[in-house]
Amino acid sequence: MSKPLILVSNDDGINANGVHALVDFISDRYDAEIVVVCPDSPRSGHSAAITCDSPLKVTDCGNYRGARMWSVSGTPVDCVKLAIHELLNGRRPDLLLSGINHGSNSATSVTYSGTMGCAIEGCVRGIPSVGFSLLDHSADADFAHSRETIARVVDAVIASGLPERVCLNVNIPAQCTPAGIKIVRGARGYWSEEYKKYTDPHGRPFYWLTGAFHNIEPDSVDTDEYWLSRGWSTVVPVSVDMTACDAIAGVSAMFA
Amino acid sequence: MSKPLILVSNDDGINANGVHALVDFISDRYDAEIVVVCPDSPRSGHSAAITCDSPLKVTDCGNYRGARMWSVSGTPVDCVKLAIHELLNGRRPDLLLSGINHGSNSATSVTYSGTMGCAIEGCVRGIPSVGFSLLDHSADADFAHSRETIARVVDAVIASGLPERVCLNVNIPAQCTPAGIKIVRGARGYWSEEYKKYTDPHGRPFYWLTGAFHNIEPDSVDTDEYWLSRGWSTVVPVSVDMTACDAIAGVSAMFA
Repeated sequence: MSKPLILVSNDDGINANGVHALVDFISDRYDAEIVVVCPDSPRSGHSAAITCDSPLKVTDCGNYRGARMWSVSGTPVDCVKLAIHELLNGRRPDLLLSGINHGSNSATSVTYSGTMGCAIEGCVRGIPSVGFSLLDHSADADFAHSRETIARVVDAVIASGLPERVCLNVNIPAQCTPAGIKIVRGARGYWSEEYKKYTDPHGRPFYWLTGAFHNIEPDSVDTDEYWLSRGWSTVVPVSVDMTACDAIAGVSAMFA
Repeated sequence: MSKPLILVSNDDGINANGVHALVDFISDRYDAEIVVVCPDSPRSGHSAAITCDSPLKVTDCGNYRGARMWSVSGTPVDCVKLAIHELLNGRRPDLLLSGINHGSNSATSVTYSGTMGCAIEGCVRGIPSVGFSLLDHSADADFAHSRETIARVVDAVIASGLPERVCLNVNIPAQCTPAGIKIVRGARGYWSEEYKKYTDPHGRPFYWLTGAFHNIEPDSVDTDEYWLSRGWSTVVPVSVDMTACDAIAGVSAMFA
């Protein structure tokens, strides 16, 4: 019987420390075949974007700790699609792990997250899929404290599977051993004050995204933001079906 | 009292016929100030992607039927963010309309849709937001049959507003007058056979996305695909909160 196949991707790119840390952890713990397919450069904030209008190049990046490594000149979701359709030679992954992202994907950030774009793409295809993010944006972030959370989550998913059309968004506090794991919902909020304005050498304006996240429910104890700020890791089940089913009746009444 | 402000965006770019058709329809019907902010070139499939790691340029594209037109060197969501934070001079839109997309955004496609990325971004900020898509990919698609659906949807949203944290994904059949409007959920499915493989002049492979949508529930009468294929326009309420709240108990049990 062949070993289980774990597909690993991310949005920080094939050279990011986070994906190497993830391969370190899972190759230490599981007797699995690991294939890594990541963007060839950072693609933070690429959500579930796909490349429709241009070709994609694939580069063989050799092996890392026994894992076959590939890079793709596209988005995080392109990596998952190309892996499934081409690079895995028809084998279906038993598990998709994305990350470890350099930086939080809690709360509303799941919408913009390429890390979670990968997990959503795997989930749409029926593959148990998890995205991991550490609350530290720096390129040399220390992922050591992530190891226990990742082990517990992956053990649980291997043992129990996941509900249909649900993937997991796992966020891990930085620079401390997490107090434990809370299963919660994503906090509601939005980003504000988002652009720094510059003037180019020809006197024309240009803009660069920045800003701060505004949690509109900081006291809600059932949210990821609440527990992350108190040193816990959080697991948010994410639905790949975006229909607001409980709004159908109300919207129908608008057209009656 | 100032006129209501309608922000229009899309993912097909500032030169697409679809956004001009949308401005035609709404400027004919409503006494509103219309501001259009679209990508400077097509960004189909860009989902809710944002540009974090490079600057954005903004170009004044003059007026079209009284609407102020801008283009942005970024994603659809970048356009909405820059509009709200910079280009509208602090005015808050009363309504955000995205499209008319050249091509369907029904079923699972909402995940990848830049058209719906715009609507989701508006909705996160509390702006009533609607994405419109015509089931015709061609650049010279005939949008005339969309007019009645758009009028009914926008009339309803102006009259009633929308539920909190819900936006609308409206798809319109092509080349016929729609039989009417159905309020439904997005059909479940996935895309398959997705890459055409080529060989470059140096003997290396490259890939281009293609493929077909597989509806895994073609007989479900409460889905968009079912009614679109029968000549109806469809309205799917889309939640901007991605937590699968009904999965929290089950996932919690995995960690007990």
